[in-house]
Parts: sequence; C-alpha cells; structure tokens
Amino acid sequence: MQITFEAIGTIKSPFKRIDDMPIQPSGAADVIGEVILKPELSRGLDDVAGFSHLILIYCLHRSRGFELKVKPFLDDRRRGIFATRAPRRPNPIGLSVVKLIARENNRLTVAGLDVLDQTPVLDIKPYVPDFDAVDKPVIGWLTDRRHLAASKRSDTRFKNK
Amino acid sequence: MQITFEAIGTIKSPFKRIDDMPIQPSGAADVIGEVILKPELSRGLDDVAGFSHLILIYCLHRSRGFELKVKPFLDDRRRGIFATRAPRRPNPIGLSVVKLIARENNRLTVAGLDVLDQTPVLDIKPYVPDFDAVDKPVIGWLTDRRHLAASKRSDTRFKNK
Repeated sequence: MQITFEAIGTIKSPFKRIDDMPIQPSGAADVIGEVILKPELSRGLDDVAGFSHLILIYCLHRSRGFELKVKPFLDDRRRGIFATRAPRRPNPIGLSVVKLIARENNRLTVAGLDVLDQTPVLDIKPYVPDFDAVDKPVIGWLTDRRHLAASKRSDTRFKNK
Repeated sequence: MQITFEAIGTIKSPFKRIDDMPIQPSGAADVIGEVILKPELSRGLDDVAGFSHLILIYCLHRSRGFELKVKPFLDDRRRGIFATRAPRRPNPIGLSVVKLIARENNRLTVAGLDVLDQTPVLDIKPYVPDFDAVDKPVIGWLTDRRHLAASKRSDTRFKNK
C-alpha cells in the first residue's frame, strides 16, 4: 500500500552535511533554525505561538535504502532498526521535538534542530505532555547510553552507499 | 515536492468507526491492539522488546482533505490546524505513544491505542525520554483542557464531507 504526501514546507538549518551533526535535539539545544511553511498554509500556524514545544515530522530526504539490523550511533552491537532512531529506515521519516522561539506568518524560528538543511516537513503538531510524555519508561539497550546522545555527533555510517 | 511511502504494516484495533473513539492514548490506556508488520520486516523488531513504550507513526487513512482552522475536540473555538492534533491535516499523519506489552515475530501487542482498525503503519520508533520528553512545556489553548482528553470521545466533526 503506497501513501503519497506533499511537503508542507522546508527546514532551514546550519547542517549541510550528513556527518558531524547532532544525532538528537538534546545535542542541538542551541542550534537555531527555521521551519518555512508554504505561504498558503500560513493560517494553519495560528495559535501555535502559545506552545513552547512542537513535534516536527519530516522526511529524512538524504536517506536511501535500509537494513533491518544496524549499528546505531550510540552502540557497537547491531540492533533491529525499529529499536533505534537511525535514519536509514524502511520509511525515512524523522521526528524531533523542538523548542518554539517565534512565529511570524509562515515562518517558525525553533531551537534544538538536529536535522539537515532543506529537510522537507510533513507535519507539525503541538507537544502536549498528557499525550506525548511517559512516566518512567524503560529504554532497553539505550539504558546506559542515553546520556551520550547529547555529545555524540553523527558520522558517515548511514551515508548512502 | 511529493514523497511516497509504503506501509510497513497494519494496526488491529477494536475501533471500526471514526466517531465515539478515544481522541488520545490517555483515553485509551486499556485498549489493547496489535501492530502487524510485514513478515519480511520482522527482524527489524529485534531489541524492541527492551522498551516499555513505542512511538507509532501512521497514516490517518480515513481522513480526506483539510481546513487550516478547525474546532478541535477539546475546544469550541477555531484553532490553526498545526496547533491541534485534529486528524484532517494537510498530510494525514498520526502519532501515538503506546505501551508495548509483547513482541512475537512480526506482531507487537500494545496498549493505549487511539487509532482505527486497519490503520497503515509508516514507522515505529523507541520512545526515549532524553529525546522525546520536555520538562515543563507550555501548551497554549490546551492548558485548561488537557485533562479532558482522557474522557472525551471523538464525534463526527472530522468525518469526510
């Protein structure tokens, strides 16, 4: 079953290369960028300014192909792709919770961007802890490694071959 | 820019109708269902069982068309679509954090399903609080209304016209 979406806008970020970038928003807290929506969708951003954080859903547009078991940036063992946030996935969809700094017409200024420049945006949702936050989750293989995400940078391992 | 994905599997849930269902996982804590992946992707679920919660990204397959300002289930004023979780969006992409109960081969049993039966799944990611949780977010128009999400049921307002 094929499903076709149309990008609603584009992300402007300082990251032009797939390697040496933050691997998660926690490593990109001070990275400021913009989400630029198509002007005709601008009114859909009304009321967004009341929220401190947004969920960006986007296409990992430089990712091609996938493997079912991968060595993630934070581990040296192969893990099932759906137990990782690695970018080469069956559907290259990315998800980042970012901090909203300002909205002006069809432009959002956000902080915490761990995405490549020119990334196509698919959806924007308000972050609501009652819907999106979990109390005391268990995080499997990441248990001893999650603190590394803030400092670890990407490398070329998920570069297209 | 058009982007085409292929469903990686399907959700089995008790909800066959678009009205009278929970509007968020918080209203569906005891709703058990299954995510059935294509058998050939089964190995991608290795290591998933170590996580207590997963993020499901799926296609809101019964949603057609959208309006930029909508009256969400939890409000009686019109809000920008990107400041709501309403299903009729420019790209009908849904996001739910669910509790993982069991994995068996290509099947996940999950709790907290606020989605329709037969929903096509696009991606599965492990929920990791360091990446996905925000400390003390501000939630705009939902501030006084978020507690309603656990009891409010959907109605026909987002039914296709």
